[in-house]
Amino acid sequence: MKILIKDVTAALRTGKGKYSTVKTDICIEGGKIVSVGNIQENYLPDKVINGAGLLALPGLINAHTHVYMTCLRGIADDLPFDEWLFGRILPNEDKLTAKDAYASSLLGCAEMLKSGTTAFLDMHMFPGKSAEAALKTGMRACLSRGLVGSGDDEAGSTRLKQAKAEIAKYGGYDTLSFMLAPHSIYTTDAEYLKKVSEEAKKLNLPLHIHVSESLREVEDCRKKHSKSPVKYLEDLGVFENKVTAAHCVHISDEDIEILAKHNVNVALCPRSNLKLGNGIAPVKKLLDRGINLCVGTDSAASNNTLNLFPDMSLTTLLHKGANMDASAVTAGEVLDMATCNGAKALGINSGELAVGKNADIVMLNTNLPQLEPKNDLISSLCYSANGSEVDTVIINGEIVLKNGRLTKINEKSVCANSEIIIERLIER
Amino acid sequence: MKILIKDVTAALRTGKGKYSTVKTDICIEGGKIVSVGNIQENYLPDKVINGAGLLALPGLINAHTHVYMTCLRGIADDLPFDEWLFGRILPNEDKLTAKDAYASSLLGCAEMLKSGTTAFLDMHMFPGKSAEAALKTGMRACLSRGLVGSGDDEAGSTRLKQAKAEIAKYGGYDTLSFMLAPHSIYTTDAEYLKKVSEEAKKLNLPLHIHVSESLREVEDCRKKHSKSPVKYLEDLGVFENKVTAAHCVHISDEDIEILAKHNVNVALCPRSNLKLGNGIAPVKKLLDRGINLCVGTDSAASNNTLNLFPDMSLTTLLHKGANMDASAVTAGEVLDMATCNGAKALGINSGELAVGKNADIVMLNTNLPQLEPKNDLISSLCYSANGSEVDTVIINGEIVLKNGRLTKINEKSVCANSEIIIERLIER
Repeated sequence: MKILIKDVTAALRTGKGKYSTVKTDICIEGGKIVSVGNIQENYLPDKVINGAGLLALPGLINAHTHVYMTCLRGIADDLPFDEWLFGRILPNEDKLTAKDAYASSLLGCAEMLKSGTTAFLDMHMFPGKSAEAALKTGMRACLSRGLVGSGDDEAGSTRLKQAKAEIAKYGGYDTLSFMLAPHSIYTTDAEYLKKVSEEAKKLNLPLHIHVSESLREVEDCRKKHSKSPVKYLEDLGVFENKVTAAHCVHISDEDIEILAKHNVNVALCPRSNLKLGNGIAPVKKLLDRGINLCVGTDSAASNNTLNLFPDMSLTTLLHKGANMDASAVTAGEVLDMATCNGAKALGINSGELAVGKNADIVMLNTNLPQLEPKNDLISSLCYSANGSEVDTVIINGEIVLKNGRLTKINEKSVCANSEIIIERLIER
Repeated sequence: MKILIKDVTAALRTGKGKYSTVKTDICIEGGKIVSVGNIQENYLPDKVINGAGLLALPGLINAHTHVYMTCLRGIADDLPFDEWLFGRILPNEDKLTAKDAYASSLLGCAEMLKSGTTAFLDMHMFPGKSAEAALKTGMRACLSRGLVGSGDDEAGSTRLKQAKAEIAKYGGYDTLSFMLAPHSIYTTDAEYLKKVSEEAKKLNLPLHIHVSESLREVEDCRKKHSKSPVKYLEDLGVFENKVTAAHCVHISDEDIEILAKHNVNVALCPRSNLKLGNGIAPVKKLLDRGINLCVGTDSAASNNTLNLFPDMSLTTLLHKGANMDASAVTAGEVLDMATCNGAKALGINSGELAVGKNADIVMLNTNLPQLEPKNDLISSLCYSANGSEVDTVIINGEIVLKNGRLTKINEKSVCANSEIIIERLIER
């Protein structure tokens, strides 16, 4: 399918954290961007999209989420962390079936697509269900079965086998990729972490792990291992792999050096960290140290939205406020985090409107009061947009959202099915 | 006009920060809510709205903004505060004409209405222009001409006269009310503050003022007057009036006691405070002390949106994070701030879906992925909604937004006119 986007205002990356918005044409062919600017002479599009009044961006990349949990949105808010997790989330999560996980993942994908997210890094507990939802909705996904266990227990081995079976089954799809996901240092032991880490090396897969999310995690680790979680992971050899570490809220300057040394990708989840009372990550320090920062929403149970726009704006706002410096983190830097930096973490050839990149493109309607006047559209993206401006989404050269409507799934059914799950959950 | 809203899910306030969502009917007559629940036998509506699938809320109240500045959105972002204010905002503000201010205010009202705000407290420098925009769009507004000056200068007296002339001219409208607005302690002197304060007492008007927004304001005040801005204002007798103080970021425990003692309303502007690098207000302390907290967006030049939803979610999220307590500020407490607390500050009979209150009602479409499943709609309002869910807005018994479309102004013209201003500003 050849798609020509005519007369669109495109956000073109001109350097690190720098963008210019240029009126141009974009040609797509075979799932890739084949030109930005001049249309090749022999290019005959199957479809032409009139881009007038639209702003084209590289599709947003949600670098940490758990889509199967979307149906738990709002089930346990404004509660202390332990009551939230042990009293409400885990007991309800235990009641979820694989079918629920699929319906819940469809809902999460619908929400992400409608707010301009084209790819996500997922940690799940129902092998195949996020994959099926991504394939059904047309999303690009990097999937990782959450691995909880110890070196000598059966359950840990079973989960690792499930992860490998999932990869074997879904490894052939263009739009799917995989990581192994040892859940965290507090749900695994050293032996299991080493085992998963070795397995990842063998399979040439990156790792995805929660790191230093809560103060308690760090304090417990210091008590048990006399070192920080980051240092503990380094000493176990985990960072010899390519790693995306989610959260990294409570990290020391020494931890930052370790993350930098091993080129660890950090997926910031600012809304989740605030909402669960975990605190504020040292983003400015991480940024200054040149660490590849990306942005994730975390799950709808802890955010409570998979729309990346609020997390994008919070990433800049929070760190301007926390550092008492209005120039601390810029709109362009956050756009990098949500696009090309995310692509780097996920290992996908997306995240930029440039020739040869995957045609993962989002177009926003800019003729709306919240974006007027158009003094600086990159700034408006970060500070003024709320995600509802998204009009068109193209993933892998396929139009998956058009005029704000999902093309591959029935939104009403997806919403209704999520209600059915929750009625059953509460009854059980 | 009698309007019956049938079968709507209504957010009914059951106590401080407590709401229940109940399927019900709401009857409107003469600009007021005349029943919630049973429809009176002889009630014959002129219009029936099918509320199925909609959530009805009291209209949101933006407790601190400057709508005439909306056209400056995005003109100066990611800059240090002084460069922002003195290098970019003030020089461009100086170029604005009264006509620009009107067009800019229309844009601001359009954005507010589309995101569910029904009333705003405005500080402006173009008498009559915010008033005209509010009347044109159907918004409820509390207007205050910003008063800058010293006790003995002509300009200060002129501004006070302008404020009084505005009140004389627009005082007869149901939907408009007024305050006097000494701008801040750093743009006035003690004599002028006392003069404005005395005038307010004579006219029985509340005051609206910026207080302790930046650390610099507080430090300068301590150097000059050997006390905090709050104490300085108390000593001048300013708090003998009914006062709404915007910001209150850098305040001490003693300041909080003073604010509590004088029943000062505090308009929190968390996004603006973060964006300008000013910091984080001690919201939890203010809340615990029982101070009437409300939420404002500040202007589009410092936020950069007049949509109150992001400020509402930030108010809870930020203070859960800053206090490292997930139960710190609840969704219901924030809904209070954005509705009944705001109404109290503005002195208007709105802010609650209850008999006898002004019919200022917002209805949101809840059948959307970001609000599904509907486990807790009050929580979803605060954590999941982005404002684009707003379907219908009624103010003073008049439908001003229907199916997401403004009924009283042409949105496209309003957007286009804001572009014309900015082209002229940049050329000048």
